[in-house]
Amino acid sequence: MFGRTYFNGEVTEAAIGEKVTLKGWVQKRRDLGGVIFIDLRDRSGVVQVVFNPDISAAALATAEKIRNEYVLDIQGTVIKRDEANINPNVTTGTVEVQAESVTILNEAKTPPFIIDERTDVSEDIRLKYRYLDLRRPAMFETLKMRNQTTKAIRDYLDGEGFLDIETPILTKSTPEGARDYLVPSRVHEGEFYALPQSPQIFKQLLMVSGFERYYQIARCFRDEDLRADRQPEFTQIDIETSFMSQEDIINTAENMMAKVMKDVKGLDVALPFPRMTYNEAMGRYGSDKPDTRFGMELKDVSEIVKDSDFKVFTGAVASGGQVKAIVVKDGNADYSRKDIDALAEFAAIYGAKGLAWLKVEADGVKGPIAKFFAEDQQQLVSALEAEVGDLILFVADKKGIVADALGALRNKLGKERGLIDQSKFNFLWVTDWPLFEYDEEEGRYYAAHHPFTMPFREDMDKLESDPASVRAQAYDLVLNGYELGGGSLRIFERDVQEKMFKVLGFTEEEANAQFGFLMDAFEYGTPPHGGIALGLDRMVMLLAGRTNLRDTIAFPKTASASDLLVDAPSAVSDKQLAELSLRLAALKK
Amino acid sequence: MFGRTYFNGEVTEAAIGEKVTLKGWVQKRRDLGGVIFIDLRDRSGVVQVVFNPDISAAALATAEKIRNEYVLDIQGTVIKRDEANINPNVTTGTVEVQAESVTILNEAKTPPFIIDERTDVSEDIRLKYRYLDLRRPAMFETLKMRNQTTKAIRDYLDGEGFLDIETPILTKSTPEGARDYLVPSRVHEGEFYALPQSPQIFKQLLMVSGFERYYQIARCFRDEDLRADRQPEFTQIDIETSFMSQEDIINTAENMMAKVMKDVKGLDVALPFPRMTYNEAMGRYGSDKPDTRFGMELKDVSEIVKDSDFKVFTGAVASGGQVKAIVVKDGNADYSRKDIDALAEFAAIYGAKGLAWLKVEADGVKGPIAKFFAEDQQQLVSALEAEVGDLILFVADKKGIVADALGALRNKLGKERGLIDQSKFNFLWVTDWPLFEYDEEEGRYYAAHHPFTMPFREDMDKLESDPASVRAQAYDLVLNGYELGGGSLRIFERDVQEKMFKVLGFTEEEANAQFGFLMDAFEYGTPPHGGIALGLDRMVMLLAGRTNLRDTIAFPKTASASDLLVDAPSAVSDKQLAELSLRLAALKK
Repeated sequence: MFGRTYFNGEVTEAAIGEKVTLKGWVQKRRDLGGVIFIDLRDRSGVVQVVFNPDISAAALATAEKIRNEYVLDIQGTVIKRDEANINPNVTTGTVEVQAESVTILNEAKTPPFIIDERTDVSEDIRLKYRYLDLRRPAMFETLKMRNQTTKAIRDYLDGEGFLDIETPILTKSTPEGARDYLVPSRVHEGEFYALPQSPQIFKQLLMVSGFERYYQIARCFRDEDLRADRQPEFTQIDIETSFMSQEDIINTAENMMAKVMKDVKGLDVALPFPRMTYNEAMGRYGSDKPDTRFGMELKDVSEIVKDSDFKVFTGAVASGGQVKAIVVKDGNADYSRKDIDALAEFAAIYGAKGLAWLKVEADGVKGPIAKFFAEDQQQLVSALEAEVGDLILFVADKKGIVADALGALRNKLGKERGLIDQSKFNFLWVTDWPLFEYDEEEGRYYAAHHPFTMPFREDMDKLESDPASVRAQAYDLVLNGYELGGGSLRIFERDVQEKMFKVLGFTEEEANAQFGFLMDAFEYGTPPHGGIALGLDRMVMLLAGRTNLRDTIAFPKTASASDLLVDAPSAVSDKQLAELSLRLAALKK
Repeated sequence: MFGRTYFNGEVTEAAIGEKVTLKGWVQKRRDLGGVIFIDLRDRSGVVQVVFNPDISAAALATAEKIRNEYVLDIQGTVIKRDEANINPNVTTGTVEVQAESVTILNEAKTPPFIIDERTDVSEDIRLKYRYLDLRRPAMFETLKMRNQTTKAIRDYLDGEGFLDIETPILTKSTPEGARDYLVPSRVHEGEFYALPQSPQIFKQLLMVSGFERYYQIARCFRDEDLRADRQPEFTQIDIETSFMSQEDIINTAENMMAKVMKDVKGLDVALPFPRMTYNEAMGRYGSDKPDTRFGMELKDVSEIVKDSDFKVFTGAVASGGQVKAIVVKDGNADYSRKDIDALAEFAAIYGAKGLAWLKVEADGVKGPIAKFFAEDQQQLVSALEAEVGDLILFVADKKGIVADALGALRNKLGKERGLIDQSKFNFLWVTDWPLFEYDEEEGRYYAAHHPFTMPFREDMDKLESDPASVRAQAYDLVLNGYELGGGSLRIFERDVQEKMFKVLGFTEEEANAQFGFLMDAFEYGTPPHGGIALGLDRMVMLLAGRTNLRDTIAFPKTASASDLLVDAPSAVSDKQLAELSLRLAALKK
């Protein structure tokens, strides 16, 4: 125990009568007229220490100078508390330590904010004084859970013969994908390293080398405009294997997650995890990462409404689109016309030009468009499994817009109507992804996952002729509506990789300049391989029941990628710039 | 086993009669006129596969196309080998697999060099084709050992309640210490992040937060001119604790190392490790990281020679210097005058102006300076415990030069005379370091470890008046003459830290601009704390018996900090530079 007898939270009745040495911080101090009580905190919890003039006048005199957050070294004897003073809320609530001597190891000024979950100080202040914010027990518990999570992952993968191998942080810039962070080289003037967006290339090269089972809990970097749930540096559980099928990799990943759930949350999750193709997920949930903790699935009513008199619906179907609906159970009374207008505005963010609705009443459907379905209403209501009291919301548009708008509405309504069981952990595999996404604006295809993803063998001949229809041997793991991560089998043949780059618009020269070494490697006996990468920050966020990625990271950055604690980024000296052969361009406005 | 029955190195007699599926690379192929044998390799080892026309003509036909490093999927039956063909050198030497079918999973061109320990191809070529070089079993074994090492470390620290916590890679530039790698910020124009030289500040802040026991296997970065045993990015086992004494931390670290030695090498090392003060190490070995696997200690003969007639010796002593000697056992016959001249040249690198010597013969000492010691020779020889046949080497100079020159000579002679038992792992703690080093050229003090190191309490009042005499509560762990790492108790009081920066030549403004947040943190209840950091790359190098750090890193950089495999650093686009508001300065010549 290194100079102390117990951690404070572990002083229990078993220790009564023992002389103990304790260390820690003053959580609270009460002076009850000549007798002083303090709660002494360390990372394990709190124990009450009492300074009594009959025991040690000197200790009491020191205790009089003590303030909150002082750091103390205390010697004393564990005694039982009076019945009246027992605190059932803490593990140490039936005992207290009678102080015989006390040393103030360090003093403390009054913190700039109250160290408490319920503090209403701005997050910027909390980030500036992160070392104080991290004193909140919830922060310690979350970071402890992060440690438990990585330990469970390492234990599992180690048992399966995976080797933890480090890959470079100073590596090469590749224009495909997100924006790189660059690092100027001093030795090679005018040249730059880049920080890795993932260890993708290196882990594939390790498969070429015959390592067969690799993992790494790897730091990755993306210089993107940040959203609330992004950080410029993030951590990924990175796994790659040789000779394994998609089935094998999925099996490995879900067994790993089952161990995480058991070790971290004490929960037995059912295996195998449910699976769904990308098309099914988009069809039923309007999302490629559906939250399956509640229903309210999207239903296609195109067939029923396509011959109605409601031009919006018939027009959408006639031009190749769809009409789909979700049913808001017992929603009639809760949504006024104005509320529904607000929902329509929300749907408009996702491209929906309108939001049609019907309320199911005992005497039939009501609402502005009810008149168009006087005849079909029975069929419609029954196809949607709607009941009296329900609100039906329709979107009629192109397939993609219908899915996006209704999917987003479904998530919003699921949350605000309390349909989600927060105790559930619903894992889901989404499989059979499209290999490419078409960017209308740029008029070109992008890799839906990344350019190293293996197409379905049976779709291979459509790679150049009909890229949009090619499916990828790719799989995403979804938890409670969040993408935990994704993986794929990889291309391991030079000719397939070359075709892939061609479809992505690379010239042969560009492909070789960027990835020639990888395609060269494929020619020296590269095994079939594949893997997966899972986001650790998000995983911990979901396990800990937090809503903010920053709560899972000891020293996070703000939405503008600043570290408010150490003040980074910051100006550097002219000497440093000169050594790097760099000059600052005139500042943009 | 995911689609295979065994790893190849694990097919033993227990499997005879089994139908098996194996995967792997062709290590060797022999065509014995109609019957083909291949050695099929995977990361576990090799098994012999035989293609026999009586078993499968189709498999044999495919086998005829197979070349080295092809990747195969093989079905067959395990059979016993003929007695005559048994290979006792491999685990699978008594069996072979009779192939029933074979699929070529991928072909392979002839590698640009033979994949073998004994290859004489240049290291640059091996680094360019690192994925092939990593196929050498020794490389796999070294990286596997690296994985075992980190696992042993994690297991130990986890058991002691240490939490693995990640600290930022994008952080702030600090001018003290080595040169930083900088990362330009896109969002904050003209500002830069720096890659961390160590997580020092963050781990101390975690102690302020009350985490008490932290560790991380952390990537660190230094933009220094590289020597053979340096890499621009390296990995450090980073540990910090609160409320622990130097004794506690040393105890923790040596127990951790004992577990590493047990788990990785199967060796029981004796605890506690020997200890020596810095002064003793410099005095006895002329080194702050002595290799204690052999003797040949430095002996001070100043008292004996100070009144001799040899002016070089008497002059050195009179001007406050020393005369010290090492004894080369049985060295008389092995070192000619010319050889000794070469040793003197070597000693000159370390500042020695000369290298005096004596040979101990049956009839007295011989050599150019023997005449000066006609009377004192008995006393000299006996003080040095020299015997007939020994060579004595003397350096007379300032204390520092004597230590450096004789220390270096000792290491050189220890190696070339085969005095070192290569099977030994000699750990040693070097304690009681000086807090500062004085830089004669710059006329200022530098922190011997780093500016956060705690002085001895009893030396505190000399901090400003006599910095050179202040001792640090610091300790280095040495293994076989290499510094594995070092640690210290840290300053945790603002006034002491301020004094420290003052001695180091910081103005108050500079100290606050760089480290104000840390000194602020000290005021909010900072516990006494300290830690240690050990170099993982070097540790693995010594455990694996390698002589090159690059062999312990999957994808290392060259001495000019280049990655020859991916071609980094490299030029980036004008668009990327513009986004960062940077321009290249005119290139230096």
